[in-house]
Amino acid sequence: MDQPARESSPTIGDLGETAVLGRILPRLEDGRAALVGAGDDAAVVAAADGRFVVTTDLMVHGPDFRLAWSSPHDLGWKAAATNLTDVAAMGARPTALVVAIAAPPSMPVSVLEGIADGLRDGLAALAPGAGVVGGDLSASSVLTIAVTAFGDLEGRAPVLRSGARPGDVLAHAGARGDAARGLALLFAQARDAAGEPDPELAEALRARHPHLVGAQLAPSPPVAAGVLAARAGATAMLDVSDGLARDARRLAEASGVALDFHGSAFGDDPMTALAGAEDHGLLATFPAGAVPPEPFQVVGSVVAGGGGAAVRAGLLTLDGEPVDTGGWDPYSGWDGIAG
Amino acid sequence: MDQPARESSPTIGDLGETAVLGRILPRLEDGRAALVGAGDDAAVVAAADGRFVVTTDLMVHGPDFRLAWSSPHDLGWKAAATNLTDVAAMGARPTALVVAIAAPPSMPVSVLEGIADGLRDGLAALAPGAGVVGGDLSASSVLTIAVTAFGDLEGRAPVLRSGARPGDVLAHAGARGDAARGLALLFAQARDAAGEPDPELAEALRARHPHLVGAQLAPSPPVAAGVLAARAGATAMLDVSDGLARDARRLAEASGVALDFHGSAFGDDPMTALAGAEDHGLLATFPAGAVPPEPFQVVGSVVAGGGGAAVRAGLLTLDGEPVDTGGWDPYSGWDGIAG
Repeated sequence: MDQPARESSPTIGDLGETAVLGRILPRLEDGRAALVGAGDDAAVVAAADGRFVVTTDLMVHGPDFRLAWSSPHDLGWKAAATNLTDVAAMGARPTALVVAIAAPPSMPVSVLEGIADGLRDGLAALAPGAGVVGGDLSASSVLTIAVTAFGDLEGRAPVLRSGARPGDVLAHAGARGDAARGLALLFAQARDAAGEPDPELAEALRARHPHLVGAQLAPSPPVAAGVLAARAGATAMLDVSDGLARDARRLAEASGVALDFHGSAFGDDPMTALAGAEDHGLLATFPAGAVPPEPFQVVGSVVAGGGGAAVRAGLLTLDGEPVDTGGWDPYSGWDGIAG
Repeated sequence: MDQPARESSPTIGDLGETAVLGRILPRLEDGRAALVGAGDDAAVVAAADGRFVVTTDLMVHGPDFRLAWSSPHDLGWKAAATNLTDVAAMGARPTALVVAIAAPPSMPVSVLEGIADGLRDGLAALAPGAGVVGGDLSASSVLTIAVTAFGDLEGRAPVLRSGARPGDVLAHAGARGDAARGLALLFAQARDAAGEPDPELAEALRARHPHLVGAQLAPSPPVAAGVLAARAGATAMLDVSDGLARDARRLAEASGVALDFHGSAFGDDPMTALAGAEDHGLLATFPAGAVPPEPFQVVGSVVAGGGGAAVRAGLLTLDGEPVDTGGWDPYSGWDGIAG
């Protein structure tokens, strides 16, 4: 975190809503789809094919991030990245976001400026041409970032979770376990003697492990791969946010099939690759015999579920052996600490 | 608030995310515009005219509501109503919402069920045919409701804040000051001896003053009037959320005009009518000589701003005398109490 800038920055409460928005809005671009951008009661966004894809997600200080570990820029980047991936998982091209932020009046305005910069840079890197078309600013004792993202199907059918068929190829694009490995490093090496998240330890850790810590704090999911999968005829797809095994089970349940992972696709640490949350890769199925487009890699196959309870349970196997699914639940997973 | 139900309800943390969603989603309808509803990574919504209107807003426990005064049903209803009015203010017909809620794991699930029922009932009453197409559930120590609402312009141009011209008729639809009168009653008569918001006092107060207290806790803004105004040729429009004078100044600034209110339109208590926030009426301008459609009432006229600083300041007068604008700023207005 940029401590000197925070110390010299006025607080949100010092400036008030109008002046804060006046500092934030110029840092953002509204993108190619904006017909009416921020400043009116609502925005107007182009939806050329007569439909739009929409997803919404909250990031909350405490269960979802620690300010001692994530910079404001990281928060904005990650808020963009996670929502863009949900749009991509439908086979759509992201077009726009709206962002609502609730922040304590005592928070330095520089934190909001950093979040805005991270949103802008994440959009530019992961979904060029998409922008922020509107937002809201509220007061809360807990920093909360609500992003709603939109996408264009460009005339294609949406790719749902429910279309996988026995015989299909199971493929994955993106990291497998890196975000969880980064989080484990942060818990192990970026807390002080009392167990509290420590910004200086986190900065030093990130310098030593930029890839893994970055995968947790500012991930770069394969957003563009969503459209590539749809064009290649993907039969089902979802965003892997809660762990590969846990999300694969959702795809299996929705499609009424079972999935067999190939152990050879998961390297030395298959359990972290399968259970680790927050990678935001894309898991997709393609017709039998298809070669999934880059950056997808074949990680298994779709098999008949056997019917009844086994199908409803979304049977998962790794080289034929049952897999125990782990993953993240915000109510059981949060330890109550903010930091 | 439904205290007996809350006491017997399991908590969100007891059930976990999946089971909680299983209780909430059946209470909601996804509406006529939903092509793909909740359950996939994103929803797909119809946008027949190739554009969509979008607005987003946060409601936060503390600055925006007190759980001792608002029932969960009130919260859902108000979250729907306030966002629907922003869509209406563009001259659009509301089509759908997405809703993200962050709640403490210790909160009874019945609170979320009540919010869902309020969203459903508010939509049915204020925007029939519109539904909830998606959402997100997160953990937070502060109950936070993020709604993003969509609308269909049905081929019309959006009605912006910037189109008012000297000579236009200034008209308003909805309550003028009732929400502020209701809030003043709650602060005066629904707090205990220690000044804390009290649910039993609030319930008794609401029984005595159902209209004013209801205008604050579960408003019924004139959502359908937005389309009527657009069809009647409204030149500018906005949602009056922060007080009629404060929001009128925004319209005046955006249009580069001045506005003169007619005192005869504001009854016995013009200052509350002009300064009171949260009525969520619609303020619109119509071409000179037009008769605004019901339920709009003429409340003033658009006059030339005089140029320069006076225009930038959005000059407001009441029967020719300058008006001091008040209104709500979340950073200066919140007293830090939740309740």
